Amino acid sequence: MSAIDRLSRELGRLPGVGTKTALRLTYHLLKGRKGDVRRLARTLEEVAARVHPCPRCGNYCEAELCPVCEDPSRDQGVICVVEEAYEVGAIDRAGHYRGQFHVLGGRLSPLDGIGPESLDIDGLLERIDGSGGETTEVILATNASVEGEATAVYLEGLLRARSVRVTRLARGIPVGADLEYVDGTTIAEALAGRREM
Amino acid sequence: MSAIDRLSRELGRLPGVGTKTALRLTYHLLKGRKGDVRRLARTLEEVAARVHPCPRCGNYCEAELCPVCEDPSRDQGVICVVEEAYEVGAIDRAGHYRGQFHVLGGRLSPLDGIGPESLDIDGLLERIDGSGGETTEVILATNASVEGEATAVYLEGLLRARSVRVTRLARGIPVGADLEYVDGTTIAEALAGRREM
Repeated sequence: MSAIDRLSRELGRLPGVGTKTALRLTYHLLKGRKGDVRRLARTLEEVAARVHPCPRCGNYCEAELCPVCEDPSRDQGVICVVEEAYEVGAIDRAGHYRGQFHVLGGRLSPLDGIGPESLDIDGLLERIDGSGGETTEVILATNASVEGEATAVYLEGLLRARSVRVTRLARGIPVGADLEYVDGTTIAEALAGRREM
Repeated sequence: MSAIDRLSRELGRLPGVGTKTALRLTYHLLKGRKGDVRRLARTLEEVAARVHPCPRCGNYCEAELCPVCEDPSRDQGVICVVEEAYEVGAIDRAGHYRGQFHVLGGRLSPLDGIGPESLDIDGLLERIDGSGGETTEVILATNASVEGEATAVYLEGLLRARSVRVTRLARGIPVGADLEYVDGTTIAEALAGRREM
């Protein structure tokens, strides 16, 4: 198999990249400068060599701990639990959260064979139990999907016995959305969670 | 800048990959096995090191000449002219063409500053003139777009003086298409090019 075919097979393994897109990307790389291809190769090598999950929260990092865990100025008492590491960035970039994170590495999905043992739930409980009461709140920021919801309910059951406040991200109308295009379940949630002005 | 950020910036340079897709691809690679990331890196390195345009036709290859130019069983008298190297594969995979190819490396597009000097037209003329009359037909398989059409007309002008048959891919109804959904220009072309049954 030629290097071109192998590259397009490798690229075709990426999510959302089919055979045709993989071919298009391959020829784009071929037509571009060799230096660009080499830089991409080098960056991939570096990522494979240097990046690893933070042993504390599961976020990806190059140093011993991730930038969030390493930052002493962040609130140590609040842990925001997310499904995947890329959600840490999404919440952090919003710029209103200054606490800790914990990455589960997925969500409960029995049909896909993902049970509690597949997620980093033990790590979360150890962090809370080992904090000597410093952890005061756990924000369950799993997705607003059926599986994300089930995961949050499961975690809430485990955390209830511990003396921490357990919260869940509010559901409601996304900022900037037209009510006309918002689905009924979301409107129902927004009504149920309505607040005094 | 961290290796993660650099990887997602590099991936974001690929065509059709925006900032969000680049992040998604990056985290997909991070979550997968290191071996997969390393294999992709190695394949990119190999492509950068080994693959080059065929000095004869402009198709990409790893050997001295591309597989088409190297194959003595192919018809040496017909040259199919395409805009880009990936179109060689598209035509070859269709399995009905057994002649040579020539890759222009683009199409005439004065608005983008792409004139005849940017394309490998000299190479094409040298191949025809240097074949000692062996080249009997040149198939202009540039795209059916305005620029592809202009490129074909320009090439036809250069080739007219030479004793070769100059043909163009037929335009018409794509196989399997419903007439209802075919645009008017295509129907007009199909009518103009109608054939005896």
